[in-house]
Amino acid sequence: MGRVGLIEDAVILAEGRLSVFGAKTASCILRYANEAVVAVLDSTNAGKTAEAVLGFGGAVPIVASVKDSLKYKPKQLVIGIAPIGGGLPPEYREIVKEAIESRLSVVSGLHYMLNDDEELYDLAQKHSVKLLDVRRPPDELTVSKDEARFLPVFRCLTVGSDCSVGKMVVSWEVAKALRKKNINAQFCATGQTGMMLSGWGICVDRVISDFVAGAAESLVKKVSDADIAMIEGQGTIYHPAYSGVTLSLLHGSCPNIMILCHHLGRTHIKQYDVSIPPLKKIVYDYEYVSAYTHPAKVVGIGLNTVDSDEETARKACIELERELNLPVTDCVRFGPEPLADAVFKEFKQWKSVWKK
Amino acid sequence: MGRVGLIEDAVILAEGRLSVFGAKTASCILRYANEAVVAVLDSTNAGKTAEAVLGFGGAVPIVASVKDSLKYKPKQLVIGIAPIGGGLPPEYREIVKEAIESRLSVVSGLHYMLNDDEELYDLAQKHSVKLLDVRRPPDELTVSKDEARFLPVFRCLTVGSDCSVGKMVVSWEVAKALRKKNINAQFCATGQTGMMLSGWGICVDRVISDFVAGAAESLVKKVSDADIAMIEGQGTIYHPAYSGVTLSLLHGSCPNIMILCHHLGRTHIKQYDVSIPPLKKIVYDYEYVSAYTHPAKVVGIGLNTVDSDEETARKACIELERELNLPVTDCVRFGPEPLADAVFKEFKQWKSVWKK
Repeated sequence: MGRVGLIEDAVILAEGRLSVFGAKTASCILRYANEAVVAVLDSTNAGKTAEAVLGFGGAVPIVASVKDSLKYKPKQLVIGIAPIGGGLPPEYREIVKEAIESRLSVVSGLHYMLNDDEELYDLAQKHSVKLLDVRRPPDELTVSKDEARFLPVFRCLTVGSDCSVGKMVVSWEVAKALRKKNINAQFCATGQTGMMLSGWGICVDRVISDFVAGAAESLVKKVSDADIAMIEGQGTIYHPAYSGVTLSLLHGSCPNIMILCHHLGRTHIKQYDVSIPPLKKIVYDYEYVSAYTHPAKVVGIGLNTVDSDEETARKACIELERELNLPVTDCVRFGPEPLADAVFKEFKQWKSVWKK
Repeated sequence: MGRVGLIEDAVILAEGRLSVFGAKTASCILRYANEAVVAVLDSTNAGKTAEAVLGFGGAVPIVASVKDSLKYKPKQLVIGIAPIGGGLPPEYREIVKEAIESRLSVVSGLHYMLNDDEELYDLAQKHSVKLLDVRRPPDELTVSKDEARFLPVFRCLTVGSDCSVGKMVVSWEVAKALRKKNINAQFCATGQTGMMLSGWGICVDRVISDFVAGAAESLVKKVSDADIAMIEGQGTIYHPAYSGVTLSLLHGSCPNIMILCHHLGRTHIKQYDVSIPPLKKIVYDYEYVSAYTHPAKVVGIGLNTVDSDEETARKACIELERELNLPVTDCVRFGPEPLADAVFKEFKQWKSVWKK
């Protein structure tokens, strides 16, 4: 029983989809906030533990239904998937209703706003539970004033070769590693899972397109008295649907440096017929488009090797390090230290100039 | 008295701001739909005609107040400005209220939704008039499926060195010139003025950022049985606040070709401390970022020379033509034919391949 960020004594809904890429939100919560999770709902894996299915998440039990979860005294149902388009899968609707009827609050990061769904809203009112739509942007957003680049906080943005390659994980892990060095490093959440974990942020992909850079700017402003802002990246500049979100976030947060994240072995944008270029070109392209408003260099690579064996993963890191002349690590498998060191080195240099 | 697109017997509100760049929406309506305009409201120019102040717009009278406009029997008040951030200027509020009380409908392209303003909404209900928020996106939008590039319509997107350089005007003028050649060319509006003129479209900068490319895709799909889609561009990839809107529109509409628009003499992004690169680099950059998903080349330059004298304008066109080896024209001053010819030539080539 416990609480981390927005998550408290939660059942994580991942019905039929519990895997690292199939239920991104569920996985990250189980990785970083499993003390706040009482159960996972996935009837296809019922009876196992999170650890047994995912390789992490500890002894959190997997149950087949809301009813089966009640013995663990949950307070919340958290929707643990992040599907393309952000709709509520039809087969999840009945589960959400059952949770509300069982007096669980519902935490959702979908584009589909539970509070705008009359049936669910009325049901929640009736049972006195809350529906928390994490993706709902704050009302007061407006356009960027291009001020992030003048703030006294060192900014590191994670960027990617595609969606769901591990940008949130790298930002989170590097921030944690920097804090261990007694650096005040703050994680800036720009997506639903990051917000659930950290308890604040803005889901920039839900923001009116004119205001996305402004939203990113406002996040960086909120941590402007920290040493380092680790900003969670979104999408990729190569994505046929989301490239604009990526560019707005890049130009709005005005990073000093970037960490490029990639899923080892992925050759095409997930669910689209668009190839992913070689990493050398990706590094070049991010540095090139950053410089449209403010120069930023890529200082390291976060390689997601989750579906490779350890030898393949280690070899890939070494080969990429040689090829790109940059530190490369899988933060989860081999630890974030090489990236944290690279960020810290750049921060020190920047600070020595900034203070003058 | 008349109607063009969404505009019908309208008073155009441009209080204190009537100029080509100060009241972009007013100017374009006066240029292309002045038969649907009965008066312009700008007390600082009252008594003059649109033509006398702007150099176009004909004998449309300029009046000092809503009351003074009533003798021209208006049906609508159209908000004729497009300010950064899209708010309703406080000094416009009383004018809008007076218009509603005088039984005029109000057409607005602001981000600020008149229908969400309780006082204005109630007042409109009371006087049985409509508030038309042109920028409100349709409900059914979702993510792009990357399908535009497979549609049987030839796509030409206008792109720019900055906001408000004339992308709407160039798209509109070239579409008109192509129709004179008996080509079925359709104008796809992506901004408020374009929508007011054409009567349809989507203001993409108001759309949820995840869905902008999808919105662009849906516009192109709507004209997929035309020969050529002339797609109105937005923003610029160099804009600290709006670059993401530009990139989403570019990747979502998947142009075959582009026309680059520039305002002669402008050296910096309007209201921001960001320099505009040389046109040669801009051409390179748009072709480069297009190719992330689909290759497209720039086939001509639309040069806005509105505040230069004719000799300077002509010289600039000739010099740029030499430098870039592309046709260059100011569509308003010298006519759109060089650009229409370039588009037509590319269309013919594409069609000969496409049909096979």
